[in-house]
Amino acid sequence: MRFLIKFSYDGTRFNGFQAQKNQRTVEEKMNEALTQVNNGKKTCITATGRTDKGVHALAQYGHADINVEINERQLKRALNSFLPDDIHVIETREVDDDFHARYDAKGKTYRYIMNLGEYNPMERNYAFQYNYDIDVEAMRKAIRYFEGEHDYRAFVTENKEKENCVRSIFYTNIDEEDDKLIIEFEGNGFLRYQVRNMVGYLIKVGEGKATPESVVEVLESLDRTKSGKTAPAQGLYLVDVEF
Amino acid sequence: MRFLIKFSYDGTRFNGFQAQKNQRTVEEKMNEALTQVNNGKKTCITATGRTDKGVHALAQYGHADINVEINERQLKRALNSFLPDDIHVIETREVDDDFHARYDAKGKTYRYIMNLGEYNPMERNYAFQYNYDIDVEAMRKAIRYFEGEHDYRAFVTENKEKENCVRSIFYTNIDEEDDKLIIEFEGNGFLRYQVRNMVGYLIKVGEGKATPESVVEVLESLDRTKSGKTAPAQGLYLVDVEF
Repeated sequence: MRFLIKFSYDGTRFNGFQAQKNQRTVEEKMNEALTQVNNGKKTCITATGRTDKGVHALAQYGHADINVEINERQLKRALNSFLPDDIHVIETREVDDDFHARYDAKGKTYRYIMNLGEYNPMERNYAFQYNYDIDVEAMRKAIRYFEGEHDYRAFVTENKEKENCVRSIFYTNIDEEDDKLIIEFEGNGFLRYQVRNMVGYLIKVGEGKATPESVVEVLESLDRTKSGKTAPAQGLYLVDVEF
Repeated sequence: MRFLIKFSYDGTRFNGFQAQKNQRTVEEKMNEALTQVNNGKKTCITATGRTDKGVHALAQYGHADINVEINERQLKRALNSFLPDDIHVIETREVDDDFHARYDAKGKTYRYIMNLGEYNPMERNYAFQYNYDIDVEAMRKAIRYFEGEHDYRAFVTENKEKENCVRSIFYTNIDEEDDKLIIEFEGNGFLRYQVRNMVGYLIKVGEGKATPESVVEVLESLDRTKSGKTAPAQGLYLVDVEF
């Protein structure tokens, strides 16, 4: 039986999602828990996507094939009993055998949190501690230019020359809550570091070092050196995936 | 010159506030930073109060005497440059030489955060992951009985027989924000584990295992065995101190 598994994790103590030798990763911990549930038969998760070191997930998804007799509630409970306290299975759902967590994903939402106020030690791993004022209105103007279908090559780190970097962003938003800036992007897919590089550019705009309209030029340049700094990982959350 | 120092900390990695041999404590880190600022002269902080292992502070206060020429802004910056990333000086203020951070404190506010919703790995150290429904209205009725001047002996752990346990609670409140329950107490002083024991009793009421009115009997019994479990440390925050 194939199950779709919805899970959350705190990225702080993981060396990213993807399994690597001698590193603590989310994928490794999920595979270990799945294998235990599946009576010791080596079982792997196929996730919707990866997240980088320090990035959090409010809802990440993956599918796995389980051969033992188990229902959705039991699977959730069993996985949580084997997982460490920084990963949590929220829900499991039985799906068709041809369901695929990566190929069937239609959209993803990412959130980036910046603290503009006083440094907060409790949130040092859960928001970018920017700790200064910034021109939020300029950032609001700039973020609109990321919407639509574009070649996002200029905002992708570790660019492989031949990789297709055309993606669509359906929705963007910037909210202010107390001293927090909450930046959201919803799109059909995001490339490596793309969200953090877009946020890095928004910060440049918010600091008056670039105009909101310049986003268009940078996008069109297809040149990574034109965009700017990558915003730190700890502010980034994978919020949800649509299938 | 005596300075009043307002600071915050994440209690997760500290073995409480109070300095102890071979333990990482907030007091030890503050004393080390103060000593460095004070040109190597051993300098100690006198805090308003202690917090236990795992308890956080949004605003803790202490005074210290600094002999080097330094102003308020410089002192804040210098201390923060020496402190680890889980302690942060928010503000410093020059005060009279007879000011005392403990004796001059008139009131303290504590907050306790419970997550009634799904387990959240990002908040496992920052809220009690209760993860069930609870009768909030019963808790709201119960918390009122803690207000006023009482002998809180029944809610104090490690009770010294002769210690005076009479304190006043000026204000209590329970707010709901999404799946969070935010419980606040403001009073002239709190005894060891008092807030966590009061919250433990509120949970008992919220679970229907005690009536809201029974708070009165327990208070009057002066008997620790009548109150119940101590709520976990990670939900507790020292929010502010009034002078």
